[in-house]
Amino acid sequence: MEPPKTILDIADFFRRLPSVGSRSALRMAYACLSLPREDLETFSHVLQDALTKVHRCPTCGLLIDVEKCPICSDPKRDSGLLMVVTSPKDVLAVEACGAYSGKYFVLDGTISLAQHRTLESTGVSRLVATVKKGGIREVICCTGNDLEGDTTALLIGQCLRDTGVKITRPASGLPSGAVLEYADPATLSKAIQGRVKVSEDKEE
Amino acid sequence: MEPPKTILDIADFFRRLPSVGSRSALRMAYACLSLPREDLETFSHVLQDALTKVHRCPTCGLLIDVEKCPICSDPKRDSGLLMVVTSPKDVLAVEACGAYSGKYFVLDGTISLAQHRTLESTGVSRLVATVKKGGIREVICCTGNDLEGDTTALLIGQCLRDTGVKITRPASGLPSGAVLEYADPATLSKAIQGRVKVSEDKEE
Repeated sequence: MEPPKTILDIADFFRRLPSVGSRSALRMAYACLSLPREDLETFSHVLQDALTKVHRCPTCGLLIDVEKCPICSDPKRDSGLLMVVTSPKDVLAVEACGAYSGKYFVLDGTISLAQHRTLESTGVSRLVATVKKGGIREVICCTGNDLEGDTTALLIGQCLRDTGVKITRPASGLPSGAVLEYADPATLSKAIQGRVKVSEDKEE
Repeated sequence: MEPPKTILDIADFFRRLPSVGSRSALRMAYACLSLPREDLETFSHVLQDALTKVHRCPTCGLLIDVEKCPICSDPKRDSGLLMVVTSPKDVLAVEACGAYSGKYFVLDGTISLAQHRTLESTGVSRLVATVKKGGIREVICCTGNDLEGDTTALLIGQCLRDTGVKITRPASGLPSGAVLEYADPATLSKAIQGRVKVSEDKEE
């Protein structure tokens, strides 16, 4: 026996969210229907609301549901520093660490030939145009520490080579609190290659 | 910085579904917003649809989105057998194993004093009334193999003692494919206590 079509439809939606398998999706759909009716109605309206209210800030690409982007419109932030990330969520992580006070540029994912994500579709071309307008002294490529993130950072570096703007990446190495014994070889070799003098700051 | 309120609202909803923590909920909310706009609209409508269409079958308690319950209205099923389960999902699991051809009675969870689930609120009183109407020769209590499930089965047995109807439970023991070495002590001791003669059927 199949579950009712309406329940399968709800499960189908959940199935498309990250780390939800088909069994979990079905469990979630059933759980949905055992929630109070008002809550489901509210959620359906919240989704509709999101569709009308949430949009990307035209300057930095952050997802916002207000007119003025809180970061772009903050006069206290250093507009000479531009951090490039690949998802609006990344901004939350960087803001949470409290070590950054510049502006952001949110790409639409990393560049990937396999997944047809190009300079144009990820927004790198728009980034280059923004930097060429001037006023930025450093672009920090926080595009992720995997193959695609590295490639994206490299391509951004090439695209911006002639602008004279400093292009940096966050340091690669051992995570805070790491035990040497359990560090993976790739991380450890990056940490050794990028070793710094004790009590030396990497900033030039 | 906080994520936009609309995104937090979506995450709040996901957070209430089974095995979704707050980090996953936020990741799912962001993933939601990167799905095609039409899909979100469809989902919002599907939810509204579910609210109007999905209801419990007044006879067995199964969740259905059609007028006639496919199980209650099936003349080929044995209406002398009534399997009691505690959730509409359980019916799917039993149907999938193909070993049952009777009818169902879906309770609203197990009886639990701690969670204020009583004979009345779980539907056991309604079950007793159904059985007393006659026509049922066996009630199979598939209420789960934990403390609450055991208690619920026991209480159903007590409530139906005077009806003369046979009350059974599915056999407890080693799951199919189990390796003795890894069986948990509770399962193993139940399997030993409930041991059966080789090539003997438990049915009287």
